[in-house]
Amino acid sequence: MSALAAGVRAGRSEAIARAITLLERGDPAARDLMRALRGGAGGAHRVGVTGPPGAGKSTLLGALALRLAATGQRIGVLAIDPSSPFTQGAVLGDRVRMAELDRCDNIYIRSMATRGLRGGLGPHVADAADVLDAAGFDWVFVESVGVGQVELDIRSIVDSTTVVLVPESGDQVQAIKAGLMEIADLYVVNKCDREGGSAMVAAVLSSAALQHHPDPGWMPEVLGASAGGNGQGIDEVLARLQEHRAWLQLDGRLAARRRSGMRARIAGLAQRRAAERMRASVDGAALEAAAGRVLDGADSVEDIVQGWLAGWPPANGASA
Amino acid sequence: MSALAAGVRAGRSEAIARAITLLERGDPAARDLMRALRGGAGGAHRVGVTGPPGAGKSTLLGALALRLAATGQRIGVLAIDPSSPFTQGAVLGDRVRMAELDRCDNIYIRSMATRGLRGGLGPHVADAADVLDAAGFDWVFVESVGVGQVELDIRSIVDSTTVVLVPESGDQVQAIKAGLMEIADLYVVNKCDREGGSAMVAAVLSSAALQHHPDPGWMPEVLGASAGGNGQGIDEVLARLQEHRAWLQLDGRLAARRRSGMRARIAGLAQRRAAERMRASVDGAALEAAAGRVLDGADSVEDIVQGWLAGWPPANGASA
Repeated sequence: MSALAAGVRAGRSEAIARAITLLERGDPAARDLMRALRGGAGGAHRVGVTGPPGAGKSTLLGALALRLAATGQRIGVLAIDPSSPFTQGAVLGDRVRMAELDRCDNIYIRSMATRGLRGGLGPHVADAADVLDAAGFDWVFVESVGVGQVELDIRSIVDSTTVVLVPESGDQVQAIKAGLMEIADLYVVNKCDREGGSAMVAAVLSSAALQHHPDPGWMPEVLGASAGGNGQGIDEVLARLQEHRAWLQLDGRLAARRRSGMRARIAGLAQRRAAERMRASVDGAALEAAAGRVLDGADSVEDIVQGWLAGWPPANGASA
Repeated sequence: MSALAAGVRAGRSEAIARAITLLERGDPAARDLMRALRGGAGGAHRVGVTGPPGAGKSTLLGALALRLAATGQRIGVLAIDPSSPFTQGAVLGDRVRMAELDRCDNIYIRSMATRGLRGGLGPHVADAADVLDAAGFDWVFVESVGVGQVELDIRSIVDSTTVVLVPESGDQVQAIKAGLMEIADLYVVNKCDREGGSAMVAAVLSSAALQHHPDPGWMPEVLGASAGGNGQGIDEVLARLQEHRAWLQLDGRLAARRRSGMRARIAGLAQRRAAERMRASVDGAALEAAAGRVLDGADSVEDIVQGWLAGWPPANGASA
């Protein structure tokens, strides 16, 4: 295990790949790995890139990575989107540019499986971002799909959140209006040369989301881009991300944000593990008997569950 | 409380409304209510109607309810979809027919709020269906929006699951192909007179989903309908639902299905309550201290959480 951790810290691709596979599998060794790597993360700037399928997140991300790599910086990418073109070898609209990413020694791309249908990122994603950070990358990008649920998760594990929209994504406009997306530090309307592009920019600009950004003093911008077309807007997106990075460095903002994200991450894992512990503690026979009692009218669902929970947590438990 | 339960059992609308409001609020009195109503449910046939927003679920449901009510049966409807036209007074495409539903003494419609962004139905929905069942309705319909996550939930609380699709719902075709929707007992392609209608029927018919229905011996059908147009297909949908109801009555299938659904419902609530218990047991100061330890490299997220979980469940806990 310490050899694997050492390999990760040295930035060796095979070690990183093996480490992330452990996390992905939920292998018990992953806990030892993360213990061995503790304290090794924090140097990378972490950027979340989220938005609906087909918004061109991978294309945008590939373009950003290539520009950053050209300046000598090292880039790690986690693609959580199951439909991500990264996993299918077709990024930036053509194979030639995918090959360009592949050839670049400064760019490491890894796609990760999501488990379950429930949405949400899963704790292994945050750990994988820590692995890339510990491996010494300057930038760690996390690409994920989704509205609402996943975006709230992603905010707790990155420093800058970018939401990518496209002119046709009407659902996203609804989501913005519903206040589901008050989490972005930067909005990018990709494919903005298409019909409806400027209307989409205007819709986001006029939405309440921009007025309710959680960090006072930071005003999220709405940039148009065409990552897969003429490359319009990529430099501006990068400049704005760097501006956000610089802004976070001041007045302890980055530390405060990471602390707040870490609180959410720990609380989320604690709740998940408590639910898993409950699932493991109720065997099939107990469940079958309980179902019978409810259907026979002898008991209620809530009473049964509260009975099971009696004594959770024990007196020496978490409240200490 | 016993007065409220008695009112529900007598089928009085005000009592039903008040009971569901208690559930919706998560009022502690709801637990007493459900205890008082235990054993009172089971007579209604419960039908889940799910599908993407705009598929015309409410319109279909309204048409089914009116036909059933015309034969003297009593219909209860829970609309969980936050965008349901039921809540907005515009069902079946026009106000006249909404008024028709409203005037019908045999039809009770209630829209329910969903809590949180996480998706999933929430335990109060299953309880509300029990309330309607205890109130003596012959049919209880639960309308919900969503793909995947919500549909899996809904299957555990209804007897028949209907998935409503429309020709343009490309995401749904993807979901079917991905096996996310192996849960429907009946597929309805609504608005099937539109362009792409027969292609959609063919796509669902050819999908693997139909081959993997969880109940051996039941083959889900794919029906075209035009609930908001000429009313085409409504009679066939109703006939097929009645056929499924009759099929379930044989050979103990309904009892087996309800038992299986109840197991899932109890297990789901148990996990949710365990997570809530964990959230309540970790105070802000403990979380803040834990976040600091991780960020300082003194501890890992998993180790902290496992420490909190030590002794969960206590020896006298749920495994009994």
